[in-house]
Amino acid sequence: MSHEADTAAVAPVVRTDADGVAVLTLNEPASINALSEAMLAAISDGLDEIAQDPSVKAVILRSAGKHFCAGHNLKEMSARRSDPDGGRQYFQDLFATCSAMMLRVVRLPQPVIAEVKGIATAAGCQLVASCDLAVASEEARFATSGVNIGLFCSTPMVALSRNVPRKMAMEMLLLGEFLSADRAAEMGLLNRVVPRDALEETSLEIARAIAAKSPAAIRIGKRAFYDQAEMLLEEAYAFAGRIMAENMMARDAEAGIGAFTRKAPMPEWTGE
Amino acid sequence: MSHEADTAAVAPVVRTDADGVAVLTLNEPASINALSEAMLAAISDGLDEIAQDPSVKAVILRSAGKHFCAGHNLKEMSARRSDPDGGRQYFQDLFATCSAMMLRVVRLPQPVIAEVKGIATAAGCQLVASCDLAVASEEARFATSGVNIGLFCSTPMVALSRNVPRKMAMEMLLLGEFLSADRAAEMGLLNRVVPRDALEETSLEIARAIAAKSPAAIRIGKRAFYDQAEMLLEEAYAFAGRIMAENMMARDAEAGIGAFTRKAPMPEWTGE
Amino acid sequence: MSHEADTAAVAPVVRTDADGVAVLTLNEPASINALSEAMLAAISDGLDEIAQDPSVKAVILRSAGKHFCAGHNLKEMSARRSDPDGGRQYFQDLFATCSAMMLRVVRLPQPVIAEVKGIATAAGCQLVASCDLAVASEEARFATSGVNIGLFCSTPMVALSRNVPRKMAMEMLLLGEFLSADRAAEMGLLNRVVPRDALEETSLEIARAIAAKSPAAIRIGKRAFYDQAEMLLEEAYAFAGRIMAENMMARDAEAGIGAFTRKAPMPEWTGE
Repeated sequence: MSHEADTAAVAPVVRTDADGVAVLTLNEPASINALSEAMLAAISDGLDEIAQDPSVKAVILRSAGKHFCAGHNLKEMSARRSDPDGGRQYFQDLFATCSAMMLRVVRLPQPVIAEVKGIATAAGCQLVASCDLAVASEEARFATSGVNIGLFCSTPMVALSRNVPRKMAMEMLLLGEFLSADRAAEMGLLNRVVPRDALEETSLEIARAIAAKSPAAIRIGKRAFYDQAEMLLEEAYAFAGRIMAENMMARDAEAGIGAFTRKAPMPEWTGE
Repeated sequence: MSHEADTAAVAPVVRTDADGVAVLTLNEPASINALSEAMLAAISDGLDEIAQDPSVKAVILRSAGKHFCAGHNLKEMSARRSDPDGGRQYFQDLFATCSAMMLRVVRLPQPVIAEVKGIATAAGCQLVASCDLAVASEEARFATSGVNIGLFCSTPMVALSRNVPRKMAMEMLLLGEFLSADRAAEMGLLNRVVPRDALEETSLEIARAIAAKSPAAIRIGKRAFYDQAEMLLEEAYAFAGRIMAENMMARDAEAGIGAFTRKAPMPEWTGE
Repeated sequence: MSHEADTAAVAPVVRTDADGVAVLTLNEPASINALSEAMLAAISDGLDEIAQDPSVKAVILRSAGKHFCAGHNLKEMSARRSDPDGGRQYFQDLFATCSAMMLRVVRLPQPVIAEVKGIATAAGCQLVASCDLAVASEEARFATSGVNIGLFCSTPMVALSRNVPRKMAMEMLLLGEFLSADRAAEMGLLNRVVPRDALEETSLEIARAIAAKSPAAIRIGKRAFYDQAEMLLEEAYAFAGRIMAENMMARDAEAGIGAFTRKAPMPEWTGE
């Protein structure tokens, strides 16, 4: 992961920041931003840095080149078939590393918006599903196409099946066909579909809208969302009630609610 | 909670019954039917009475005034910041009380239909999500807008995220923007969107259709629905199979199935 | 269950195979293919045979006559009310047998496509929901209509509620009304809606597309899909990562990925 100024030309991921929004750009268009070891490490490092950076309020995951991401780097993987164990241990470690990166997106305190153009396939489609929000250009296309080459998209389906209805997920996984952005949006995988030349503006607009909220509220809420999603209803309510009472005690909530009831403008958020 | 005849002008909730349908009307339009302590207690009491009332076969949750419900009463809450503990215990109790009210809707033996006009925001939107069915007028708008004032809608998201796809829920929660009724229906939050002047007729029609069914079947089924939703597939089948065999032994099922196989009209349901 | 050649005229289910696709035809149109004891046994036997048959790569569930399936055989069930226990034990066993048949669909190594025309009601609608994929003709109609005769569709709701949004499922279950194929597709119950005369062609096309993939990948993936669906996110990733590493070691994956990276045509799949 690299800041634009230094080594953008060679870094797998480039980070640029403005107005509380960090843009992580997958920067290997020649390989359709495949999730090579280097790319996975760069995204993971980028997210870890952002997790510690209070100046970042929202994140955009963007791609250099025509496409978003084509999933795993199959050449790099195939080369390990000559390992003494045929690559088994390497593959296990690789999928664990990739899953850990996807979980980093989910656990990042700041919301992450996937900004998708061109193709998002296999683990690239999983990355879209793993983000909190996703926007795409009209020509974007989505597939979990591993089934076409004998490798079922089993890790992508973990994220996909938590985003779209069951039969839609099964169709993508079993047939491996491309879906249009419109169809992906209908199914629940995307929040917005816009013309190609409005794509960056749209994701920025959403990111800035989030960056204008209380970072404390966003951080508390994003985390609670994924936590409660895995609980039984009654348990989820007990949990969320505690979270919300805690949120009421935050300085931002006191100032924000105070301003609201006085019909005053919102305060500068302290993030606390 | 009050029956129309006595103190409708001052009661937070008014109940009117006709043809097996109880209508609970949130009756504080001046506060956009905010879920004050008094309002929460009145809804809870109203539901508790209905739960014990075999004459009620279906419930409509309606609102007086232009809007459905604006969520918690922030003024009432803010006043408790002067408590010795800054309000912490009060807020915990309040969210617990509110969650208990939402769970009463889910656990009520009779189905509950939200009838929504104007705005349904924060816990007001949660109330729509908590109902078994929901209809709205075309101009109705939905938001989980707490994030705009520093208080993430953590308890509303428990109900919301069990109604709509994950990225749609996240969009509402993170951006706090209003959604149109049409968009809410597309996402799965509403069963019907109708012109404003057809709203009451539509919810009544649905309620009467439910009231015309066997109350035994409805009671058994509604409860089983939420129970099985929290089980693993195999467990859910074992559970639902027992429920269905039990349902077969009910007098209503015997009479209804008998009439059906004889091509006779449905019987008067005994509710047993 | 019977192969077409022998006793198609009397068998409740007829199986025909071509090009790696097995078609199971529900063959009692006079009873709208009701799930009688004989029909349940025939479908179960048919699925058990297919599970052991490596020549079958995909399954279509078709119906003879105008309709798909009208659910349980109520006459056969009602006759057991004269049992000493009023039929209770029989009903329990029947629903257990039916649930076991639905679970056989889910657990079958090969994907199952429901091909629906006319009506699919109650357990017939459940059968559609239980299949991995579903296509329907434009005039097809779907209902969980037990509520109309005093018997709530409690076992059908297990499958239905895992396919469509909560309020949509509740609407079908509480009102018992017919839904059009278009509406069912919007809700997530169907993958395709086509004109009546394109129905068989459409399901065959999908089945053949699946049959052209690596059977190893399909088998691994289908099973993993339903397994991971019942896990927490982190657990699901750990599980799916192991599955995917295992899949990498399969001969089909090695050959398929090798061909892909060399830009060669896909190999003949060995199914291993």
